[in-house]
Amino acid sequence: MRDSHNIRLAVIPGDGIGSEVVAEGLKVLDAVGLKVDTTTYDLGAARYHATGETLPDETLAELRGYDAILLGAVGDPSVPPGVLERDLLLKLRFELDHYVNLRPVKLFPGVETPLAKARPEDIDMVVVREGTEGPYAGAGGVMRRGTAQEIATQESLNTAFGVERVVRFAFDKAMSRPRKKLTLVHKTNVLTYAGDLWARVVERVSAEYPEVTTDYCHVDAASMFFVSQPQRFDVIVTDNLFGDILTDLGAAIAGGIGLAASGNVNPARPGSASWSPSMFEPVHGSAPDIAGQGKADPTATILSVAMLLDHLGFTDDAARVERAVADDLVERQVDWVARATFEVGDDITARVAG
Amino acid sequence: MRDSHNIRLAVIPGDGIGSEVVAEGLKVLDAVGLKVDTTTYDLGAARYHATGETLPDETLAELRGYDAILLGAVGDPSVPPGVLERDLLLKLRFELDHYVNLRPVKLFPGVETPLAKARPEDIDMVVVREGTEGPYAGAGGVMRRGTAQEIATQESLNTAFGVERVVRFAFDKAMSRPRKKLTLVHKTNVLTYAGDLWARVVERVSAEYPEVTTDYCHVDAASMFFVSQPQRFDVIVTDNLFGDILTDLGAAIAGGIGLAASGNVNPARPGSASWSPSMFEPVHGSAPDIAGQGKADPTATILSVAMLLDHLGFTDDAARVERAVADDLVERQVDWVARATFEVGDDITARVAG
Ligand SMILES: CC(C)[C@H](C(=O)O)[C@@H](O)C(=O)O
Ligand SMILES: CC(C)[C@H](C(=O)O)[C@@H](O)C(=O)O
Repeated sequence: MRDSHNIRLAVIPGDGIGSEVVAEGLKVLDAVGLKVDTTTYDLGAARYHATGETLPDETLAELRGYDAILLGAVGDPSVPPGVLERDLLLKLRFELDHYVNLRPVKLFPGVETPLAKARPEDIDMVVVREGTEGPYAGAGGVMRRGTAQEIATQESLNTAFGVERVVRFAFDKAMSRPRKKLTLVHKTNVLTYAGDLWARVVERVSAEYPEVTTDYCHVDAASMFFVSQPQRFDVIVTDNLFGDILTDLGAAIAGGIGLAASGNVNPARPGSASWSPSMFEPVHGSAPDIAGQGKADPTATILSVAMLLDHLGFTDDAARVERAVADDLVERQVDWVARATFEVGDDITARVAG
Repeated sequence: MRDSHNIRLAVIPGDGIGSEVVAEGLKVLDAVGLKVDTTTYDLGAARYHATGETLPDETLAELRGYDAILLGAVGDPSVPPGVLERDLLLKLRFELDHYVNLRPVKLFPGVETPLAKARPEDIDMVVVREGTEGPYAGAGGVMRRGTAQEIATQESLNTAFGVERVVRFAFDKAMSRPRKKLTLVHKTNVLTYAGDLWARVVERVSAEYPEVTTDYCHVDAASMFFVSQPQRFDVIVTDNLFGDILTDLGAAIAGGIGLAASGNVNPARPGSASWSPSMFEPVHGSAPDIAGQGKADPTATILSVAMLLDHLGFTDDAARVERAVADDLVERQVDWVARATFEVGDDITARVAG
């Protein structure tokens, strides 16, 4: 058993701005005052080019031994599309059974949103995105590639097992929030097989949560409502692909991708057979265009560190980090100067420490 | 051969507000002064409940004989999800080979957008959505339904044939616009089989269009850019599902679903073997919550009538209708009073006639 004040953390800075933002996340984590042992793994484009490896089996086995993983970003234009995404990032999510991809969409006071009329109380939701199946399963194939008769298929695989566990998590999440509202987002009128499974599971499980108000929204309408009526949503549960799209859109309305945090969560009890370390990462990518310039916003990573702390049971420390970020965000509005990545990290660290 | 000043039009008002908005579309069409013969088809929820029919073969065969189809909206809560969508609306699109689902996203002057900083010149794009394959193919299945071992699959089917023809249409569309920019939206880093086909086809066809600037954007990033930098986009080409999501989002940023027009287009030359009538419809649904109250905005349908005229070669008349709408939209801002559906139709009709 791990000492409750000792976190064994694996760090995967990854590509592009990944290492820059992760450095600030670790700085803040350090200021919290817990004992943290970190080990850094050089997975990503550089490793792939040097050795051809994306996620070797031994590395994956080692990663299972940590309490949690902090990831920066993965992806580089020098690597063919899908290689690092599928064989590193998605492999981690799938192998470590991160079936909950938890993505808060929250407009902090002081943050500018592109929406003319939205106030912080209008944008405060959590997207519970399924993380291990659906269109992300990697199923599909291609026939007669490169000819006029080519066919390419891509299959969404959905299981009652996989849908039910994430739906239950979403109901529990809804119960923990004042509004207790859960919206299933799907496209049941077109994706009838998968949609029907999702709708039936939500309906069945809802009987066990009489206090939760449940509704349904097609993904196209939902993307419209994110812009026109974001206050409609409290907790959203949705599949892997719809969740991917909606959470980038959510990041946009909540002030930008520089602030959007996420957790790839395996909710099993530590010690149980199905447990494995959860992985926290900013929603943004590796942003090769600004990499190495020290100007990426590390806030999303720092908020991901708060989610990590919360997940490990350090609720007060998590709240402290989130408060420090919130205060910093208010300050940004008042005293606007462009700060370097490390300065944002320093300022938030000072608030956490002070 | 049809007389070039005589339009044989099939009208499918459909469900909910469908008949209300279609009536106004026809009123405006009438004012244009062309000779139009319309025949109305009572397809939709009422017909389904009365006879169990959605789209009988004879009706489909008849519909093939018209120059074009005007559709209101399809869908009703009294019918199980997917029945009218798959067996009526999508069946029409598939059977009539509407492989281009053309959806302008345009902020008219005077229209309020939820985006704080967007001006009309920032939001002016056309989404060329594939209309006959992809995740909409209806492929998939379910096994062990209702048990804990249930599996539901949903398959995206993409063919070189299907992708290439819509991509070519999109390049032609880009050539007709001042910016000549085409963006492929997909999710190539995860949906690697389908994404790879789309990316290769766009790359190959782009060689024939040296004047068109081509780029690529993941669908999650695209949904973010719709909100944060809509001016990034000129013409977008994308698959059926991504196009569905992005065009509702597009409607939201361009002033709401009440204004968004669309054409389900079969671009074949009239008289050629692959020709069939194209179908024009507002992007919005049947809105059962406001049906029968005479307050639905018919503007999207009227703009769809403009697209219909344009498609049939009545370019000047199309421009006249669009101008009448544009003028009406400016007026709304100045002289804001809530108008009934028929009043909006009357006002725009008066402008077209005058
Ligand atoms: C990089 C990519 C595979 C990933 C995803 O699609 O899940 C990213 O967009 C995200 O949202 O974390
Ligand atoms: C009603 C539904 C089947 C349809 C679609 O998904 O294409 C609608 O959302 C649209 O965009 O026209």
